[in-house]
Amino acid sequence: MKKRYMDRIAATPLHPQVYEFMLPFFKEHYGNPQSLHSWGQKSNEALEMAREKVAHLINAEPEEIFFTSSGSESNNLAVKGLAEARRKQGNRILVSAIEHQSVLHSAKKLEKIGFEVEHIPVDEHGLIDIERLKNSITEKTVLVSLMLANSEVGTIEPIEQASEICRGKDILLHTDAVAAVGNIPVDVKKLGVGALSLAGDQFYGPKGSAALYIKKGNRIVPLIDGGIQEGGRRAGTENLAAIVGLGKAAELAEKGMSERIKKVKGVRDFLLKGLPENIEHVVITGHHEKRLPHHASFCIEFVEGESMLLNLDMLGIAVSSGSACTSKALKASHVLIAMGLDHALAQSSLVFSLLDEVSKEDIEYLLDVFPPVIERLRKMSPLYSQYLEEKQK
Amino acid sequence: MKKRYMDRIAATPLHPQVYEFMLPFFKEHYGNPQSLHSWGQKSNEALEMAREKVAHLINAEPEEIFFTSSGSESNNLAVKGLAEARRKQGNRILVSAIEHQSVLHSAKKLEKIGFEVEHIPVDEHGLIDIERLKNSITEKTVLVSLMLANSEVGTIEPIEQASEICRGKDILLHTDAVAAVGNIPVDVKKLGVGALSLAGDQFYGPKGSAALYIKKGNRIVPLIDGGIQEGGRRAGTENLAAIVGLGKAAELAEKGMSERIKKVKGVRDFLLKGLPENIEHVVITGHHEKRLPHHASFCIEFVEGESMLLNLDMLGIAVSSGSACTSKALKASHVLIAMGLDHALAQSSLVFSLLDEVSKEDIEYLLDVFPPVIERLRKMSPLYSQYLEEKQK
Repeated sequence: MKKRYMDRIAATPLHPQVYEFMLPFFKEHYGNPQSLHSWGQKSNEALEMAREKVAHLINAEPEEIFFTSSGSESNNLAVKGLAEARRKQGNRILVSAIEHQSVLHSAKKLEKIGFEVEHIPVDEHGLIDIERLKNSITEKTVLVSLMLANSEVGTIEPIEQASEICRGKDILLHTDAVAAVGNIPVDVKKLGVGALSLAGDQFYGPKGSAALYIKKGNRIVPLIDGGIQEGGRRAGTENLAAIVGLGKAAELAEKGMSERIKKVKGVRDFLLKGLPENIEHVVITGHHEKRLPHHASFCIEFVEGESMLLNLDMLGIAVSSGSACTSKALKASHVLIAMGLDHALAQSSLVFSLLDEVSKEDIEYLLDVFPPVIERLRKMSPLYSQYLEEKQK
Repeated sequence: MKKRYMDRIAATPLHPQVYEFMLPFFKEHYGNPQSLHSWGQKSNEALEMAREKVAHLINAEPEEIFFTSSGSESNNLAVKGLAEARRKQGNRILVSAIEHQSVLHSAKKLEKIGFEVEHIPVDEHGLIDIERLKNSITEKTVLVSLMLANSEVGTIEPIEQASEICRGKDILLHTDAVAAVGNIPVDVKKLGVGALSLAGDQFYGPKGSAALYIKKGNRIVPLIDGGIQEGGRRAGTENLAAIVGLGKAAELAEKGMSERIKKVKGVRDFLLKGLPENIEHVVITGHHEKRLPHHASFCIEFVEGESMLLNLDMLGIAVSSGSACTSKALKASHVLIAMGLDHALAQSSLVFSLLDEVSKEDIEYLLDVFPPVIERLRKMSPLYSQYLEEKQK
């Protein structure tokens, strides 16, 4: 059976060129980048070259890039570290209700040490309420953290508008761009953000590779204290192979991005249209236009997300029912709840996130094998029986 | 020119078997371990197998192992996370004066939020003053963090004695065993510790692979908040390839460890004896017996560590003058200062840390080429001229 991986938001495979690029850093170049001898110098040169490539991808300066081990670490460092560094200016933080858990839980931790956190709501498409953001800002607001794109529903948020609101107010705007960077054009200057999180495993780079952009002139309290790596902002021996892999992935992501987007978007649109045509009671979640080009998400009424996921897996298709980071918690997604879906509907969520290599044939296969699965699962669903009964009345 | 890498404490090369073992996790097995589909399940199985191997190496249970991205992260998680979790019981923390910066700076961070930190001194060999430790414990002491072996001077610390002191007192003992695990036998039960840090790049595993052992029943406040990875104790998509590499390195480290130790110790002893015989004014730093078997460290009077390091580098030999994590800070080592060395002597420090593959011939080469280097450097040293003048009087 042909395997069809449609769970890009959980992790991408490694690009073959990234793989090849990383190998010497496991074999020959094992020097610690902080070592003063030539082994270390060689490693350090590779480290700085990767920094340049990552900076280039998001139109930042190399010295504004700080490597971390995951998007979650970048988000923790940003939210906790920037808030703590600005503690004297104020104690209010604004985050959207649909942020990743690493942002939400970091904000929660800050509440324990005296910060006030307000959650900005979203509309039914997952779009952040910009008016509410505007009205929520006070003189004590020091940090706003809003994601650039949501991985569960694909919605791309109006970060430029948010940054206009923050401008001139000494409020730092951080954006969790983990789902966006490498997949759509991201320009920190155009966005006007003060900090931005990104992760390599979202664009054919290695797991364990990530970075935080911090605009020059902004102080941050480190999360990991110790040595002088990353300009004293993130201690610990650098994961050199992962970092050079991230650099290479950044370089590759830049090249021909618009063609790749066009191609994957075409296939994705075929899916967005095809699924509701082939299966009854399908609700598209997220925004119809402002969405990641590889992303299609649905609620398929009366069927549990996990059942669909496992059944599709048996047919060789990998999808997710939400964020991998909380998949095993088996709770309804806080994102869908924030968008106003009821719990039952939120439990029937399914996310298809397509790789660049996806073909129309892959979707045709899906549209062929999936409807019978849904039919079978619905037959077993008490909610569906109830619905049919009520309909007949 | 043959390259001779003698900077094991900065990072080891990757074991060829570890390398081979990791490759499929870059190519085929790219599933996110948290994903529910078979791609994810395969990754998760590999993750748990690695956990078992790491646990076995230190005689722990798999569920007591939490993967992190570096020894520094493990130390930060341990010191900050365990102290914060025990905040209600008391606010005193004891650390030795020669801990790694990641422990010392974590403790400093805790001071800012109301903890009291006391630094336990060491003797001239770098041995922690156990009597002082005993007398420093009060009812408010909740955490003691002492390293198992110091990477700058090689001294192996009396952790078992420290754990006897802490026993029955509701004090958690954490040991930074980064320089020790994989290189000498380490048994958490025998040591009697409540937490232990280890890192793969110290025993032929990959950079970016590390773990924290936390004895069952101990609460910890996470450093990286977010998803439910690592039992909710460390969020972020797992760096699967690094983790399976760490597991394989742990497995390999266990096999034939005593033979490897015997071999490297033989060569190391030849160096420890040979260097002072071939060069004047050489002081061995650290303990003569209680030291890491691959470790030889010296102060070579009247010559700067960095100059020696760079000159040896030109002769194809990689060494360090202390911890790689602070090498570029170019300050005298806090470890040597704590051992009572004056600043000038501490600046003349040189650490040879030998790989398992080292041969007696490598040391013979070193003993052959190094004395002329020292002679040349000393000719340029104002301190040495001063010494000679005073001697002639």
